[in-house]
Amino acid sequence: MRRLQSTPEQDGYYMPGEFEPHARTYMIWPQRTDTWRMGAKPAQKVYTKIAEAIVDFEPVTMLVNEAQYQFVRSTLSSQIKVVEMSSNDAWARDVGATFVINHKGEIRGIDWRFNAWGGLVDGLYFPWNLDDQIAKKMCDLENADCYSMKRFILEGGSIQVDGEGTLIVTESCLLSKGRNANLIKEQIEQILKDYLGVSHIIWLQHGIYHDETNEHVDNMCAFVRPGEVVLAWTDDRENPQYGYSMDAFERLTRTTDAKGRKITVHKVPIPEAMYMTPEESEGIDKIPYAKKRVSGMPLCGSYINFYICNGAIIMPKFNVPQDEQAAAIYKNLFPGRKIIPIETREVLLGGGNIHCITQQVPKRMKVLNKSELKK
Amino acid sequence: MRRLQSTPEQDGYYMPGEFEPHARTYMIWPQRTDTWRMGAKPAQKVYTKIAEAIVDFEPVTMLVNEAQYQFVRSTLSSQIKVVEMSSNDAWARDVGATFVINHKGEIRGIDWRFNAWGGLVDGLYFPWNLDDQIAKKMCDLENADCYSMKRFILEGGSIQVDGEGTLIVTESCLLSKGRNANLIKEQIEQILKDYLGVSHIIWLQHGIYHDETNEHVDNMCAFVRPGEVVLAWTDDRENPQYGYSMDAFERLTRTTDAKGRKITVHKVPIPEAMYMTPEESEGIDKIPYAKKRVSGMPLCGSYINFYICNGAIIMPKFNVPQDEQAAAIYKNLFPGRKIIPIETREVLLGGGNIHCITQQVPKRMKVLNKSELKK
Repeated sequence: MRRLQSTPEQDGYYMPGEFEPHARTYMIWPQRTDTWRMGAKPAQKVYTKIAEAIVDFEPVTMLVNEAQYQFVRSTLSSQIKVVEMSSNDAWARDVGATFVINHKGEIRGIDWRFNAWGGLVDGLYFPWNLDDQIAKKMCDLENADCYSMKRFILEGGSIQVDGEGTLIVTESCLLSKGRNANLIKEQIEQILKDYLGVSHIIWLQHGIYHDETNEHVDNMCAFVRPGEVVLAWTDDRENPQYGYSMDAFERLTRTTDAKGRKITVHKVPIPEAMYMTPEESEGIDKIPYAKKRVSGMPLCGSYINFYICNGAIIMPKFNVPQDEQAAAIYKNLFPGRKIIPIETREVLLGGGNIHCITQQVPKRMKVLNKSELKK
Repeated sequence: MRRLQSTPEQDGYYMPGEFEPHARTYMIWPQRTDTWRMGAKPAQKVYTKIAEAIVDFEPVTMLVNEAQYQFVRSTLSSQIKVVEMSSNDAWARDVGATFVINHKGEIRGIDWRFNAWGGLVDGLYFPWNLDDQIAKKMCDLENADCYSMKRFILEGGSIQVDGEGTLIVTESCLLSKGRNANLIKEQIEQILKDYLGVSHIIWLQHGIYHDETNEHVDNMCAFVRPGEVVLAWTDDRENPQYGYSMDAFERLTRTTDAKGRKITVHKVPIPEAMYMTPEESEGIDKIPYAKKRVSGMPLCGSYINFYICNGAIIMPKFNVPQDEQAAAIYKNLFPGRKIIPIETREVLLGGGNIHCITQQVPKRMKVLNKSELKK
């Protein structure tokens, strides 16, 4: 694995859409008892369900700390590749490599700096040194060269691309004080363009209200395909989310994408309000170096936090009335894919959902070059 | 990775000779300070030299504990794949999977039980739980199914095969009290036949005098090709090794191999006697759970402990008069391969040499079936 100091843009690489074919999905086994209740056992069951659902469609690698290796290898089915890797927590989207591809079908990874969603300003745990090493370890595992971008803090969940030059991010996250406060917005834009191979960036102001990642875009808005997104939505004007979603809707519909297309926005209802129960909180360790996950804490559920794998949509289910509505929307939007809802409250208690805990490796395959795509 | 309860022999798999084409070499980074002097730093330099020598000929994966990952990734050249993996020490030959192949060119691994060369009877350190998990982790990394053989204790350094039905082992090791004392010789033979796909086993009585592995065969005798071996030798009748080597020579020349061939034995001189110096011992931690490596301890150097990789012979060099003689013998015996001597006293101080710290993965390629080979 070479560590590259050039940029993907210079070398003809760009990040493909999640809806493009994957070679593999990475996940990281949940274990820390100050994030996950009851020794992480209930969360582990959900992670297992998700991994087993995905592996019906594409290869899956589960990364696992040494302490849980034997258990995980004997628990997961034999199709899943289990690889020992040290981590601080279990968020493959945010700590994993961002993979980019070129038009010959070669792939490389980007190794961003990770600081647990805000470092010493408003990060969620300390230390995060093991998480920060995962991206390059993944590159070695995938026999992919690696862009070293340790001077820029970014999580995979804070970016959404269409693979055709358009990127969606949130200001609340990308411009947060705990990340790249030394850079101005224009400098951040240039880095995103250089590394993701995009030419047009759509800035939403906010994500989901109270989202502890400083409102990652991947809980708020996702590409269905180029020119088409889903957006977390509520019609309830009393809900603080109303303003956030309305603002995002306006920004998305006022602009065009990198190819000059108007963007079609599909509204997906947010689930009804959910909070951590006393029983749930009681099962989570409270320690000085991690955010305390307390009773009554709002849970930022969103159906946008789904994962597109080869042939399927793996989506959250909260056992609320909106579940069916969201599933119906996805069924309609992804006619070629199987819709697989999985109960993920246990992941939500840790602060994320299915998209946050998965990371795709694009399939090495020749793709049309940009000029061909323009036609 | 499936865990298989059948045997390789049943499934048409067998262990190929080391001289057959490899897909990759595995090594494990040395780190423990009660095996390696001066914080393992001098040994790490030699491991690096060996890995860098091999990677000129075939891919290399270096496995490394989390604590040294960052250093190793930045120290080794980019061609070498660095993968985090927990280990107790650094002996890829003995703890790694034994890979077997079938005639379609598919490969699988064998996961033997490892007990640090003798467990609580005369093992060299405690615990060995991390080492004992490495073989199956390697199988997952190589996308190879895995024969689970945890009821039998074996290290890769205690077997030498010609890939055509013949196996050489030592009684001192395979019949030692610290390994499979519950089994009689005939049962052990059956297991070796079932798992390595061999039909004829040549038992040497001993390996190298004082060898702390209970005299592994890989320090004593190795196949150059089917029908031809090298054997550690001394003409000095005062040396306890004389009787060991003479006995081995007689056993090897009295028998035939699995194909009925007489075996040609090439004698390779042992290096002159070497001992651990006070300065060397002083740099090694002494702890209750590891063999104390003390001043004056005999070092069981042998040129037989070399590694055959694609296109090269990586061999030990001790800066003694026998170095050149041994290199000349190998140059003559391996005309198609480059002979690369590397100074390995620092590995020898830890109790082994180049063969002990490497493990090959056979190249997935169709090979002639046994009946074709018989012709």
